[in-house]
Amino acid sequence: MSHGEHFTLFTDVRGPNGWKVAEPKYLDFSKQEQKSPEHTQYNPNGRIPTLIDHANNDFVVWESNAILLYLVEKYDTEHKISVSVVNEKVHQLQWLFFQASGQGPYYGQATWFIRYHPEKIPSAIERYRKEVIRVIGVLESVLSKQDWVVGGKCTIADISFVPWNIFAFRRLSTDDSDVNLERDFPAVTKWHNAMLKRHAIAEQIKLRQSLLEEQT
Amino acid sequence: MSHGEHFTLFTDVRGPNGWKVAEPKYLDFSKQEQKSPEHTQYNPNGRIPTLIDHANNDFVVWESNAILLYLVEKYDTEHKISVSVVNEKVHQLQWLFFQASGQGPYYGQATWFIRYHPEKIPSAIERYRKEVIRVIGVLESVLSKQDWVVGGKCTIADISFVPWNIFAFRRLSTDDSDVNLERDFPAVTKWHNAMLKRHAIAEQIKLRQSLLEEQT
Repeated sequence: MSHGEHFTLFTDVRGPNGWKVAEPKYLDFSKQEQKSPEHTQYNPNGRIPTLIDHANNDFVVWESNAILLYLVEKYDTEHKISVSVVNEKVHQLQWLFFQASGQGPYYGQATWFIRYHPEKIPSAIERYRKEVIRVIGVLESVLSKQDWVVGGKCTIADISFVPWNIFAFRRLSTDDSDVNLERDFPAVTKWHNAMLKRHAIAEQIKLRQSLLEEQT
Repeated sequence: MSHGEHFTLFTDVRGPNGWKVAEPKYLDFSKQEQKSPEHTQYNPNGRIPTLIDHANNDFVVWESNAILLYLVEKYDTEHKISVSVVNEKVHQLQWLFFQASGQGPYYGQATWFIRYHPEKIPSAIERYRKEVIRVIGVLESVLSKQDWVVGGKCTIADISFVPWNIFAFRRLSTDDSDVNLERDFPAVTKWHNAMLKRHAIAEQIKLRQSLLEEQT
């Protein structure tokens, strides 16, 4: 792959995880392109995102939060969106693992049972809806005492929560629930809105929107 | 907390995630002790494991794979169960994130719908059963070409898969499925069995067994 680009990023337009890192090569999930050899030769898991760094001997890494850690370790040398102190790096990892294991999969299961599961199972929807609210509550308990999860500034550990929170907040504010995000989770709302205003994040959201409109 | 111990580890006897790191303080989940202030003062997520390192100013870290990374970074200075080369460290992270986001939560949902969900939902059980088998297949595709996921040796990235694999393999070999682990996933079987023979892992499994027998 020699096309003058720094990175190749295998991703898709609809899902949340690919949007944490930029410079995309879009795979068509309706054609199962993520399971094709073109992609699985780099990522045996057959899921996006997958990054190839052409400026580092075509180094390949997958799992969105491993990609974020790789990118900041190699390119965020001024630590604009990452921490540098040893103990803080451990907590940056801790929050990235909480996002990857506690937020992503459970929010994903909520989406699955609401939209895609072949039968309607209210008890499963309720299970994951409750877990989404529980996770937002965990974040609220921390963010009511500090502005960011680690290091006193916005880092990849905060940013990693944005894509799934966009999905979840939209659903919680439109479904017939008694959850009012601003009232019940003011610190999380403030934190989330502060990130949406960041230039790079706002640009990614605009790009995603325009690509979704092209598809429909 | 001054009792002469190096670490305090909040954990439980039954679940898989607490068993990746040793030196335990057992919480009684039937009394919801993991949600008590004694524990949530350290871990706002109210889940185990949570580690306190008394030899490092009572440094606190939670999320099992962040704990593993902390322990090897600080104490595995000879890299007996961790890699040291920069690129390999990124792949060690990648596999730890795959375990935390791809194995743990999905295997956990399988267990939930088989054992604990208030109603029997065959389509949900089937969804997670299939995902467990898919993840084992991803591991097989890699381990059929190499003995370990990264660095040519057994590291925390491999070890992190052991506890949930013990659960899953037991179920797959006893349910009425047509999956035969040794036949269908020979490389994963060999990898898993090689780890079970490691002294530290064998000792943890024995200890867990004896604690479970005490409880029943």
